[in-house]
Amino acid sequence: MIQQDTIVALATPSGAGAIAIIRLSGNDAITIASNHFVSRKGKKLSNQKTHTILLGHIVDGDRILDEVLASIFKGPNSYTGENIVEISCHGSTYIQQEIIQLFLRNGCRTADAGEFTLRAFLNGKIDLSQAEAVADVIASDNAASHQIAIQQMRGGFSNEIKELRAELMNFASLIELELDFSEEDVEFANRAQFQDLINRITLVLKRLIDSFAVGNVIKNGIPVAIVGEPNVGKSTLLNSLLNEDRAIVSDIAGTTRDTIEDELSIDGIGFRFIDTAGIRETQDIVEGIGIKKTFEKIKQAEVVLYLIDGALIKEKKQIDALKIEIEKIKNQFPQKSILLLVNKADKIATETTTLISSEMASLSAQLKTIFIAAKTGEGVEDLKEELLGLINTGALRNNETIVTNSRHYNSLLKAFEEIQKVQYGMDSGFSGDLLAIDIRQALFHFSEITGEISSDDLLGNIFANFCIGK
Amino acid sequence: MIQQDTIVALATPSGAGAIAIIRLSGNDAITIASNHFVSRKGKKLSNQKTHTILLGHIVDGDRILDEVLASIFKGPNSYTGENIVEISCHGSTYIQQEIIQLFLRNGCRTADAGEFTLRAFLNGKIDLSQAEAVADVIASDNAASHQIAIQQMRGGFSNEIKELRAELMNFASLIELELDFSEEDVEFANRAQFQDLINRITLVLKRLIDSFAVGNVIKNGIPVAIVGEPNVGKSTLLNSLLNEDRAIVSDIAGTTRDTIEDELSIDGIGFRFIDTAGIRETQDIVEGIGIKKTFEKIKQAEVVLYLIDGALIKEKKQIDALKIEIEKIKNQFPQKSILLLVNKADKIATETTTLISSEMASLSAQLKTIFIAAKTGEGVEDLKEELLGLINTGALRNNETIVTNSRHYNSLLKAFEEIQKVQYGMDSGFSGDLLAIDIRQALFHFSEITGEISSDDLLGNIFANFCIGK
Repeated sequence: MIQQDTIVALATPSGAGAIAIIRLSGNDAITIASNHFVSRKGKKLSNQKTHTILLGHIVDGDRILDEVLASIFKGPNSYTGENIVEISCHGSTYIQQEIIQLFLRNGCRTADAGEFTLRAFLNGKIDLSQAEAVADVIASDNAASHQIAIQQMRGGFSNEIKELRAELMNFASLIELELDFSEEDVEFANRAQFQDLINRITLVLKRLIDSFAVGNVIKNGIPVAIVGEPNVGKSTLLNSLLNEDRAIVSDIAGTTRDTIEDELSIDGIGFRFIDTAGIRETQDIVEGIGIKKTFEKIKQAEVVLYLIDGALIKEKKQIDALKIEIEKIKNQFPQKSILLLVNKADKIATETTTLISSEMASLSAQLKTIFIAAKTGEGVEDLKEELLGLINTGALRNNETIVTNSRHYNSLLKAFEEIQKVQYGMDSGFSGDLLAIDIRQALFHFSEITGEISSDDLLGNIFANFCIGK
Repeated sequence: MIQQDTIVALATPSGAGAIAIIRLSGNDAITIASNHFVSRKGKKLSNQKTHTILLGHIVDGDRILDEVLASIFKGPNSYTGENIVEISCHGSTYIQQEIIQLFLRNGCRTADAGEFTLRAFLNGKIDLSQAEAVADVIASDNAASHQIAIQQMRGGFSNEIKELRAELMNFASLIELELDFSEEDVEFANRAQFQDLINRITLVLKRLIDSFAVGNVIKNGIPVAIVGEPNVGKSTLLNSLLNEDRAIVSDIAGTTRDTIEDELSIDGIGFRFIDTAGIRETQDIVEGIGIKKTFEKIKQAEVVLYLIDGALIKEKKQIDALKIEIEKIKNQFPQKSILLLVNKADKIATETTTLISSEMASLSAQLKTIFIAAKTGEGVEDLKEELLGLINTGALRNNETIVTNSRHYNSLLKAFEEIQKVQYGMDSGFSGDLLAIDIRQALFHFSEITGEISSDDLLGNIFANFCIGK
């Protein structure tokens, strides 16, 4: 399905740089560009082969707008499947606008966000999950999320779904064929083979659904709450983690107004550190509010780092108080991983270290205690290993498919539900016509992922999140 | 002169966009890129023809970094004259950095600012003034400055210089030849033809030198000071000018801390409006400082708009006071163009209008009075025409060469000086050996412009102002 109109947009980031790319796509892209392009060597753009480049000028009548390189891609061998011309011009905002305006006056219209990729999907160049992966690739900012997105863009995820879908479709056809011969009581669809397929589909769906938890944290970074009183060394710890990794620190506004998050990447996995007010702040301010805030922040986190100043521990009753607080958090959030970090380990007497360790071991909750010296970096490697250990990165290391998109996740859940119904039907000896209904439903949800079945609303929603020019 | 090493840089603006271009240039550019590129169709990058594009993956060993388009340009048919590969990758900052790092680990080094264009110059692809024009093209933000830069990039300016230089060089050789035969008193160089050449050179140099004044204001925008008491309608006037032009308004920090400048483009010429505190402010604050500030701002301007609220003019003595103030400015700055703008013209009685006009006509200084109503837009067109009239845009309209670069301007001035010495020598009947010295000097200054003679210092200075990747 080739679109009728030709679209144009700036494909590179706005602002001044050495060069900028202006992209045209559509039936008339080459004709329109050719009308306003004068090659240095007198060649006609429209006579060029696909995947070639010409040097020349973009002209508006007599006026020369810029010296450019024009790259030609002829449909269907192009990103969108349509004719594409990419104009590589000088990177002045003024020139970019002049050239885009020229094409808008002469047969192009401005591309909507994601419209190039939408056309690639509509023209069958990529499926919907691959199209979504394009946006993920552009947005990826660490090795793990990038690797997942690249794999999905190459079709790794949807190929698996497509294969299962084709097999299931085949069985559905056979079962529906039985309906036409229902009075003769034949079985075209081998039930044993079908059970085998259902088993395989169930396994794959389970694995994909389970991968979402990992995929989601990898895509968005793993939220880690640092809990501790003021001056126990929270920022020193963060700096220590950062310096060793030479990772990028950024301040991003958190989900609550007063939370600042620091992001850093450990072995390619993104961690978002949510700095929290100390748990003990309730002593100073209106009872309850301090704990409430801290608990809200822990709620957002996957991992809680409970940081204390080990040098301040002088007697056992301090450790008892600490145990009570940790138990409090454990009771409130039994699912969260909690690490106790004893800072200033270099200034703690050996007997205190032993005491803390044994007391913490006596806690009913699983609690790992790590002794660190944030200033010198001592123990920071242990902490990083522990953090990575909390994330099931096995799938990532083994190049397994990981689901990161909540739309896919929801379709997988629904498909899984329908497959379970099919299984129930099989177990209960349902007739083919009843099985067929649930199989069709499962097929529908598979198709939602790859976009073989899609609504305009869904497409609009997906591509609106793209940037213009992609 | 082909450089030995291969350089790499991001050529598009930093930040996220749909795509980004990473550029490699040097002997090994194609080999290095080929080592880390796997074509979709199994083609080898290094076997491709120049000016072609391949779709494929950038790989680091087994790891796929991105799906990209790789464009190949083989030296000397490339921008730098060397082998060039341009990688068009997805526009994530993370991916850009991963790919650049990959090439840095495998035989490339980071390009210096402007190094691609420097190599184009060193390899004889463009002359120095064309190289400088590349930076001007990227920096151009209005039609006039863009047109001048494009013309210069195409060699319009340096071609003229090169032709005159070649002719002058020819005569210099002939005159120097005479020295070898000095005892025989021959004249190889026809003195009449030589005088004709000197005349032509003088004319061209004068025209180019004169064009600098126009070129400079076009390149940098024409500074206009708006002088007037608070509430006479300064911002309404600016908005009125802007709305009619749909021009871009920007706030840029002026040369003095407390000055805000508004830029707008009228018929493709940039005007920088310097808003000034009112001239009368001295009544309120320490005597002298107010006037001093206003005068400082007028000093920076080419044009002064003296804005008054016409509706407040009730009696002749107000006009007399006004005349005195205008005379004051005129005396201080006899070179500046001053326009008197009488605002709220729609609320002025006819007899007052007549009175103001006749009184202003009696001023010895040339002073144009324009009645406007900034709110309704009345008279704003007249004002714009008047502003454009103050700029000698004839050269621009006639596509004549305009000098905007102060380095060129200085070389032209020096060349002109030497040519005048030659003329003096001719008039005084100097011998060929004396003439030859001054001719050589003039030739030297011509060469400075096109870079046929250049020092490393000069080159470093010019290309340091470029952005990385160009």
